[in-house]
Amino acid sequence: MVEVTGTLANWISTRQEIPAAVRHEGKRTLLNFLGCGLGGSHDPAIEHALGVLRPLSGPAQASLLGRRERLDMLSAAFINAAAANVQDFDDTHLASVIHPAAPVAPVVLALAEQSRTSGAALLDALIRGIEVACRIGNALTPWHYSRGWHITSTCGAIGAAAAASRLLDLDEMQTANALGLSASQSAGLVESLGSMAKSLGVGGAARNGLFAALLARQGFTASPGTLAAFLRIFGDEPRPEALTDGLGSHWESARNVCKPYPCGVVLHPVIDLLLELRKEVQADAVARIVVTANPLLRQRTDRRRPRSAREAQVSLQHAVGVCLVYGAAGLSEFSDERTAEPAVQAFGDKVEIIDDASLPIEAVKLAVHTSNGPAIVRRVDQARLMSDAEIEAKVRGLAAFGAPHCDAARLIAAAWAVDDLPDAAELARRGGA
Amino acid sequence: MVEVTGTLANWISTRQEIPAAVRHEGKRTLLNFLGCGLGGSHDPAIEHALGVLRPLSGPAQASLLGRRERLDMLSAAFINAAAANVQDFDDTHLASVIHPAAPVAPVVLALAEQSRTSGAALLDALIRGIEVACRIGNALTPWHYSRGWHITSTCGAIGAAAAASRLLDLDEMQTANALGLSASQSAGLVESLGSMAKSLGVGGAARNGLFAALLARQGFTASPGTLAAFLRIFGDEPRPEALTDGLGSHWESARNVCKPYPCGVVLHPVIDLLLELRKEVQADAVARIVVTANPLLRQRTDRRRPRSAREAQVSLQHAVGVCLVYGAAGLSEFSDERTAEPAVQAFGDKVEIIDDASLPIEAVKLAVHTSNGPAIVRRVDQARLMSDAEIEAKVRGLAAFGAPHCDAARLIAAAWAVDDLPDAAELARRGGA
Repeated sequence: MVEVTGTLANWISTRQEIPAAVRHEGKRTLLNFLGCGLGGSHDPAIEHALGVLRPLSGPAQASLLGRRERLDMLSAAFINAAAANVQDFDDTHLASVIHPAAPVAPVVLALAEQSRTSGAALLDALIRGIEVACRIGNALTPWHYSRGWHITSTCGAIGAAAAASRLLDLDEMQTANALGLSASQSAGLVESLGSMAKSLGVGGAARNGLFAALLARQGFTASPGTLAAFLRIFGDEPRPEALTDGLGSHWESARNVCKPYPCGVVLHPVIDLLLELRKEVQADAVARIVVTANPLLRQRTDRRRPRSAREAQVSLQHAVGVCLVYGAAGLSEFSDERTAEPAVQAFGDKVEIIDDASLPIEAVKLAVHTSNGPAIVRRVDQARLMSDAEIEAKVRGLAAFGAPHCDAARLIAAAWAVDDLPDAAELARRGGA
Repeated sequence: MVEVTGTLANWISTRQEIPAAVRHEGKRTLLNFLGCGLGGSHDPAIEHALGVLRPLSGPAQASLLGRRERLDMLSAAFINAAAANVQDFDDTHLASVIHPAAPVAPVVLALAEQSRTSGAALLDALIRGIEVACRIGNALTPWHYSRGWHITSTCGAIGAAAAASRLLDLDEMQTANALGLSASQSAGLVESLGSMAKSLGVGGAARNGLFAALLARQGFTASPGTLAAFLRIFGDEPRPEALTDGLGSHWESARNVCKPYPCGVVLHPVIDLLLELRKEVQADAVARIVVTANPLLRQRTDRRRPRSAREAQVSLQHAVGVCLVYGAAGLSEFSDERTAEPAVQAFGDKVEIIDDASLPIEAVKLAVHTSNGPAIVRRVDQARLMSDAEIEAKVRGLAAFGAPHCDAARLIAAAWAVDDLPDAAELARRGGA
């Protein structure tokens, strides 16, 4: 199994043209990430973390999204990763349910500010880091998450190390050490979702992945068997071949999608259906809603009484409530204020969940029982993909929400043009301010 | 199970007189830690880590053992923890095989330099942190380690958070958050032993434990169920009662012992026996040595051809070789040089290991077969405890090895007198230089 490390390290450290379609998905991911980082940049969890890290920071060398200040690159990677994920609005790799950009992108942004890096090289490193994170996730799914591991944090750290290795131009042996060092520090628990500790996991993944690559460059070593040990320990029946099969020809990173709603991705098909249905039913006419879905939906989102915006983001009952009451599922609907709304809370007792393991994660069936007519029954088989224009609009909305002083239009333009940017630090600087 | 967190947090945040005998063991641990930190202060792994952290460090606010420079407190905690453990010469809690001082003590030292703290308060926080680390280890042993978790790193981080919470005077709720935040970032793999990555784990435990407590003070929260989830995920059949039974009356920290030899603690009974036996046998007369021991000895130390000092520290064959060839088992015998010595390497093929699960970890039986006489058979049932004077001598030897410019005599005096030190920063400063 040790060969997995060598194969991955060789691929990360070898030049290869990435297909245009894959690069385009990478740009969508990058743009979406920047927007999410702006949107989350002033969240209370971020303010608290900054309260600790600011006075402990080294040189002001790396920009923070949505802020004027700069921190040392490890601290900046931590904060930007935490900010990009804190609203649960970031990208998702559906097969593994990893949000790969939050732990990976801040690392390439921070490094681009340290030595001159082209935008094309930054995008290349970002895509490779995401590819590694998602493939490791595939190798561990589904046991890993059900055991209680927060897969974005655990696998994200290794993706971050891969991206940093690439951008630091580490050789194959150094890259193998970086992968091993990041795997040896991999951490993060599902239990943390719904609390600020989620941000500690995601921020830590970016920071630790970058730290691993910097250590490896310095000559710090890991046991060659670390990645193999990681797969054994963090997976029940890991599939190491998921890391290497089709590497360089099949792109998991291109299967990474952007979310239209700021909440757990498993909720999205339900929201798509309900926003449609709302045209036909009044919230107060609804007596009961039966949701039939893959058991994952219940495992991750059965929260009848969310007590905060963060818990609401992973509450099926809250999502049903805001869709039917407000006909929307944006940042305002996943707020502390809406969480306390009696009309929304009423749906805590009206939702019934039926597990159906034969349904894929992307599918859901709804039966809406009203007081005045027959039940309305609907089904979707996959969540809606966002268009490029919708992602742009989302980024503008996020910037307005979290960093209104930021020039979102310029940032959007820079992200789409990343392949032609002579100096990728431009992106990090435009994201600040 | 959530009550475990409350009970622990309440105990950590409540004043209680610690018995003199427990405090004395705490002083032995502290002194031994300081010596190990000096001894490891210039190890290549530490130099590499410093090469990365130095330029990224914030304010020079916390001393490094054996060095004149100072770093921000998170970085200093990382480096001092890694240094104190890098030679495998630090203290051991035998029941869990945790080395608790390395992750815990650097945190109290670093905090003592930030705001005036009495030596008595520092010792109190150190003992509580060690108590928490060891009890969590007891709750997870033995599955945790055999699954592949480096228990010193994983449980050490939580002990570090406990000690920091105490010294920062966090209230019960903040302490509970600190415990949860550290548990949510707990990491470290057995696979890393024998490589520099071990130091990343132990350094990370101290750094992350301190970070968790600083975050908790700032208002950052964890899910109340984090520690319970940690026990479930990191243990197969965890025993949560091990965390709370007899808390405040029975002291696991007093069962923490100092090592006479700089190698895996499971090797110590074998070394005790062989150093005695060497008076009777010549190394070159030995044809075969049969070692009968608890299966843990084979699991952790069956390394016929260690390739470095670090691997030699966990090689039974190497330990047997140096004891018989040199009649010693000190820092010089666990060096890269001795590892490459043909007379020592010859024992790679002369050692036979027999598993006997009925033997406790502290026991071992030896049968030495020579070319010129009957086999010599011996048995010990526990490793030797070091006297206070022996610990002092060990610290002097470690200082001479790793930090010859340090005034070891003054440091030793300060450690024994810690209970009377008005300003505990004195200890950190004397350990530097």
